[in-house]
Amino acid sequence: MGAGMPAPALSADEIAELLHAEFPQAFFPGCGHSIERVEHGDVRVRWTFDEGSLRPGGTVSGPTMMELADFAMYVAVFSAIGPQPLAVTTNLTINFLRKPTERDLLADARLMKVGKRLAVGQVALYSEGTEEPVAHVTSTYSIPDKR
Amino acid sequence: MGAGMPAPALSADEIAELLHAEFPQAFFPGCGHSIERVEHGDVRVRWTFDEGSLRPGGTVSGPTMMELADFAMYVAVFSAIGPQPLAVTTNLTINFLRKPTERDLLADARLMKVGKRLAVGQVALYSEGTEEPVAHVTSTYSIPDKR
Amino acid sequence: MGAGMPAPALSADEIAELLHAEFPQAFFPGCGHSIERVEHGDVRVRWTFDEGSLRPGGTVSGPTMMELADFAMYVAVFSAIGPQPLAVTTNLTINFLRKPTERDLLADARLMKVGKRLAVGQVALYSEGTEEPVAHVTSTYSIPDKR
Amino acid sequence: MGAGMPAPALSADEIAELLHAEFPQAFFPGCGHSIERVEHGDVRVRWTFDEGSLRPGGTVSGPTMMELADFAMYVAVFSAIGPQPLAVTTNLTINFLRKPTERDLLADARLMKVGKRLAVGQVALYSEGTEEPVAHVTSTYSIPDKR
Repeated sequence: MGAGMPAPALSADEIAELLHAEFPQAFFPGCGHSIERVEHGDVRVRWTFDEGSLRPGGTVSGPTMMELADFAMYVAVFSAIGPQPLAVTTNLTINFLRKPTERDLLADARLMKVGKRLAVGQVALYSEGTEEPVAHVTSTYSIPDKR
Repeated sequence: MGAGMPAPALSADEIAELLHAEFPQAFFPGCGHSIERVEHGDVRVRWTFDEGSLRPGGTVSGPTMMELADFAMYVAVFSAIGPQPLAVTTNLTINFLRKPTERDLLADARLMKVGKRLAVGQVALYSEGTEEPVAHVTSTYSIPDKR
Repeated sequence: MGAGMPAPALSADEIAELLHAEFPQAFFPGCGHSIERVEHGDVRVRWTFDEGSLRPGGTVSGPTMMELADFAMYVAVFSAIGPQPLAVTTNLTINFLRKPTERDLLADARLMKVGKRLAVGQVALYSEGTEEPVAHVTSTYSIPDKR
Repeated sequence: MGAGMPAPALSADEIAELLHAEFPQAFFPGCGHSIERVEHGDVRVRWTFDEGSLRPGGTVSGPTMMELADFAMYVAVFSAIGPQPLAVTTNLTINFLRKPTERDLLADARLMKVGKRLAVGQVALYSEGTEEPVAHVTSTYSIPDKR
């Protein structure tokens, strides 16, 4: 988005605090997910490599990638519209492109539309240190009415 | 498919044994996933309710549903073409339809095409005891060349 | 849906009249699209075979199938919630399964969710006279607020 | 891709000639589709505005956008692997983001994976002169075996 881009509605630290307050059983130090960078509708999150998610042949599992992409989208929605813990995924399409390596995964999410009701974004997932994405996701979040 | 449907390539027990042998860290008694019914390209699998997967408000998480749908597709592919542990998901689209209840989830997968290279199917997910699906998935598996 | 299904909000003739009034340049006698059957959230529409849509090798084109599926969803939305000409497609996923024959195409659309804001459905497309679908679609419509 | 990107397998003119030879009824001067730019797996195509595709309120129809995106992917596949007229779309997901204006549409397709069997890409569609995409597509092509 570049120069004219608005500031994010929440910083990485603010989003992490909010997630920890709302989802203490899912988001906590050591849970494997962390937030690397937050701009307005444009974020990077990380999944820390964990032997337990490996499939035979040393591949990170598909559900691990889907979960990371969904997390990235959630953070991107917060970065654009502020705290909306009741925003929910309505649709997610993932294309698996390459076998991940035994490294952390990085997920770059970017919103393509932020409307009153729906936010639509895409996420590219990378094994750290590689340039070609291991998976690509598009996803839609439904944003609850303001009260 | 009805009367003219071929027998499944593997029974539920055979698929469970194969999964346990190939993915011992992911599929084992008590892992939460089990196989309920296997016909040719048409299967039902179950996810046993677990407090740990709950989101605030008592909702089963989206990644839990994606993982179950992917498992259902994998079992369906085995039911149609026999043991292919190297079959991999290339594409998955999920639509989240309703909030699941605090019950087990059932996933009914049905293959719509079984080609030489690709198998395409759909999965309907239900909270046990309800008639309306909580999510719907379409997914494609890539089938490795025979040698 | 069966016995307990509510009556459709509009009949096939009422939907055809409405489409002709709203989209006279797209929906008219001889346009190639017609409505075969309308139940509540469950409809069948037809595309009449036309040499001009053939691809080399005698295949009906992908865009012809996408357009028919979108039309089927639109009719299904009307059948469930009544006249909503400003309902718009937000998302459509199509899987192409088999080569269509040189026959009419039938599209069976069924809504899986009708919410206040979104309607989600699936569509199976068939070459007339065959049992295996040529394509499968899931799609979401956004329903405008009532005023 | 940048500096290290290989040259395209075919130029824009070569692809246009091939399409005209293979699909004379669909691709010809004045058909509305043209090829603007071709790099390796990275192309831009154009749809010339045509009153007949308008929906009420002056919106270009969804099927027009799906058809253009599919055309862009087809050209991108040729740009990466050379003449493959029998390559077929297996899957396409479109998210409609904004109402197009009454202008030409540009579609930028970029392949994310070119494998032996499958090519996966994404397409962003724009109304000419605007910066925000009107729609976003991901799509998979199946590539026939070489003989």
